Amino acid sequence: MSSVTAGLHDLLGDRVVTDPSVAAGYGADAYPQAATLTGEEFTVVRARSREDVVTTLRYAAEHRVPVVPQGARTATTGAACALPGGIVLSTELMRTVEIDSVERIAVVGPGVVNTDLKAAAAEHGLAYPPDPASSAMCSIGGNVATNAGGLCCVKYGVTADYVRGLEVVLPGGDVVRTGRRTAKGVAGYDLTGLFVGSEGTLGVVTEAVLRMVPLGDPALTVLAVFPTLATTMAGVAALREQRHTPSLVELLDGPSVDAISAYGDYGFPTGSGGVLLVQSDRAGHALEDVHAYAAALTAAGATEVAVAEDRAEADLLLEGRRVLNPALKARGPRFIEDVCVPVARLGELVEQVHAVADRHGLEATCSGHAGDGNLHPCFFYDDADPASVAAAEQAFDDLVRAAWALGGTVTGEHGVGQQKVPWLAEELGEAEVARQRTVKALFDPLGIMNPGRGIA
Amino acid sequence: MSSVTAGLHDLLGDRVVTDPSVAAGYGADAYPQAATLTGEEFTVVRARSREDVVTTLRYAAEHRVPVVPQGARTATTGAACALPGGIVLSTELMRTVEIDSVERIAVVGPGVVNTDLKAAAAEHGLAYPPDPASSAMCSIGGNVATNAGGLCCVKYGVTADYVRGLEVVLPGGDVVRTGRRTAKGVAGYDLTGLFVGSEGTLGVVTEAVLRMVPLGDPALTVLAVFPTLATTMAGVAALREQRHTPSLVELLDGPSVDAISAYGDYGFPTGSGGVLLVQSDRAGHALEDVHAYAAALTAAGATEVAVAEDRAEADLLLEGRRVLNPALKARGPRFIEDVCVPVARLGELVEQVHAVADRHGLEATCSGHAGDGNLHPCFFYDDADPASVAAAEQAFDDLVRAAWALGGTVTGEHGVGQQKVPWLAEELGEAEVARQRTVKALFDPLGIMNPGRGIA
Repeated sequence: MSSVTAGLHDLLGDRVVTDPSVAAGYGADAYPQAATLTGEEFTVVRARSREDVVTTLRYAAEHRVPVVPQGARTATTGAACALPGGIVLSTELMRTVEIDSVERIAVVGPGVVNTDLKAAAAEHGLAYPPDPASSAMCSIGGNVATNAGGLCCVKYGVTADYVRGLEVVLPGGDVVRTGRRTAKGVAGYDLTGLFVGSEGTLGVVTEAVLRMVPLGDPALTVLAVFPTLATTMAGVAALREQRHTPSLVELLDGPSVDAISAYGDYGFPTGSGGVLLVQSDRAGHALEDVHAYAAALTAAGATEVAVAEDRAEADLLLEGRRVLNPALKARGPRFIEDVCVPVARLGELVEQVHAVADRHGLEATCSGHAGDGNLHPCFFYDDADPASVAAAEQAFDDLVRAAWALGGTVTGEHGVGQQKVPWLAEELGEAEVARQRTVKALFDPLGIMNPGRGIA
Repeated sequence: MSSVTAGLHDLLGDRVVTDPSVAAGYGADAYPQAATLTGEEFTVVRARSREDVVTTLRYAAEHRVPVVPQGARTATTGAACALPGGIVLSTELMRTVEIDSVERIAVVGPGVVNTDLKAAAAEHGLAYPPDPASSAMCSIGGNVATNAGGLCCVKYGVTADYVRGLEVVLPGGDVVRTGRRTAKGVAGYDLTGLFVGSEGTLGVVTEAVLRMVPLGDPALTVLAVFPTLATTMAGVAALREQRHTPSLVELLDGPSVDAISAYGDYGFPTGSGGVLLVQSDRAGHALEDVHAYAAALTAAGATEVAVAEDRAEADLLLEGRRVLNPALKARGPRFIEDVCVPVARLGELVEQVHAVADRHGLEATCSGHAGDGNLHPCFFYDDADPASVAAAEQAFDDLVRAAWALGGTVTGEHGVGQQKVPWLAEELGEAEVARQRTVKALFDPLGIMNPGRGIA
């Protein structure tokens, strides 16, 4: 047992994992390029309360030990991977949920799973909209740490749009409350937005006050099949002309659909050029909307349009979309992009994905949240072949530059993590990185919060 | 001409006001207790560009001169009042508006008047929802500086919910860009939320990227008249049970209605205990909604319920609500509250307003955004009678404490300004004020940005 594990065990008892084989399970998130650490190389604390977090961060500051806050390990960027010699501070067991249906807020612990909060809200006729593809697994703490987006953003926005206030433990153990519980409140600076999306580099969220909205109708779904990726993008453009914004506009190119079908039978077609999944949950009008979307998609060139008029059928299609990440993982090693461009430039970005892949002789998939201009292309490589790895690295970089040229960003919703640190510096520029480092230093003067990730 | 006026005139020419009688018009905002300064006591710069702002803030830093950023002077808190020996940096002439209807964003200068932006958005079938009562006069720069709320927040939220990114000039002249233009983006810390609501204490906003939404239907209005304030609050509670959230729920007690009627004929009744104005703008369903609201309000005890089914009639009633502030100003000297409590506690807060007024032998009005729990009670006093002034000051303090006891805040949307600095310190507590001062010092190390306002 390392001195850190022993020291924390003295303070926290069974909150500290002492079995290396159990600890090993906390070593990495869903970053495909994550390093593999043994359970002896780091210390895992499974906090059950704010006090456990305070104790851990106080110890970490006293002993200058780096801390990686960790939720459900669904990040694709390495933001939540253990650091050798460091502490993994897991909040997965902090799962309290308190719903106030009059104020339409939920006060939750960071370990609450996204879909569990949705279910609790629905019992009160309310919805918590933010909806990452990993919603059945990912936790609110991680959602806040990355400002998670997902599938509903085209209509409902991102996590930041729902965080009214936070309780955060800073390195050293000070507890800060940000924001408010009331519908309005402007007393002092609101630090909430600074912590949302900060990827564990400033402190550890121990409670979130989340705004909720009235529950919409159960979403109905259109599945539109296109002969080519170009016609698929014409379908996306046609949806932007609709007065009633869909609650979901998901793009899957042919290879993405094939990967899902290889993973399981979710009702997707084979051999298409591209597929759009489009939903409406508008109260009293979902059916009317999906039929309007279906007509627009047909006019845009869809060769097959199916309207899932009941929830079971709609859920199955969405389930298929949600398994895309494991389905692509099963296909082989890959780099996962998260570029986001202005929606008007999305067609050009999609063209670039396959142009870049062709240029480097790689296979690629292109999928994402077409309503937001946010794509998750993947470049596949052979990890036994250094030339193939290098080609995929170059393709990743090429596509980031293509996104920048279109007015976009290296990361729409996944965050920077370990993966995108070099691109972050280039995107922000030297002066802004320097300024952001001074912001980090204000909260984390010792530089022990998730070092090397995000603003590094 | 002061040395500051002369020095800035050398750099900025006709951007600097050299006529003291013109300068005097920039001395105060709408704070009833504002000090009166002559036009010789401060310097006014009317910036036309970011470069003018940079030049001014560079000069201010070099010469250690305090700067008051100023929009349309509609603040009720003294946040935008000139400081003796200081610079008023007005952005009222920076009125560029660029609408991108595909991305649904507006890129605007800080001087753009709120209703002008609304009109420009409507030409593209879009809406910019944030809607302070002073929307016909107030500017976006001021809306951002105070995180302005207003009349639509019950359905649409506050200014912060629509600010996607900012360009801010920091003291010394550095230019920062925060946030993003794309629908999603998480590259680095998002400082946007820190500047929104910072009341000119960190820098000067020179451009805002604002999110817009599809235009709703023209709002229809219900006017409900109640015999007592208690039954009026029963009406507010009944509206919370509606599935479709009203786009506006405004409360006016009897004395507020009387003040409006004394100011002009806007179709309000006389001698009521309280009035609610309730709107719906739900696409295709506004008429159905207002009739549902009317039925609910009748059941709650309204003695008269009128549905304004056409826009002209609805607009007249809203116009009446919007003149409330000048109507109350015409009534005499007053302290303006801006307390906000959880919506479930609003009835208790309303009871406190008149209990506090009675206890101090004062007249009071009680009005506000009932859907948000945000009230603007006024305590009137005789400024020739020191005992009356002292009683009103005590009443103001009593009501803030009542709001705190109900889980509320001293300021829902007006901001701290000069007026609420002592209460801010008490609400946040010493540790948080100290932390927020370090945040201010990061951006304004010389302490020259709007000193004495907000985090002072």
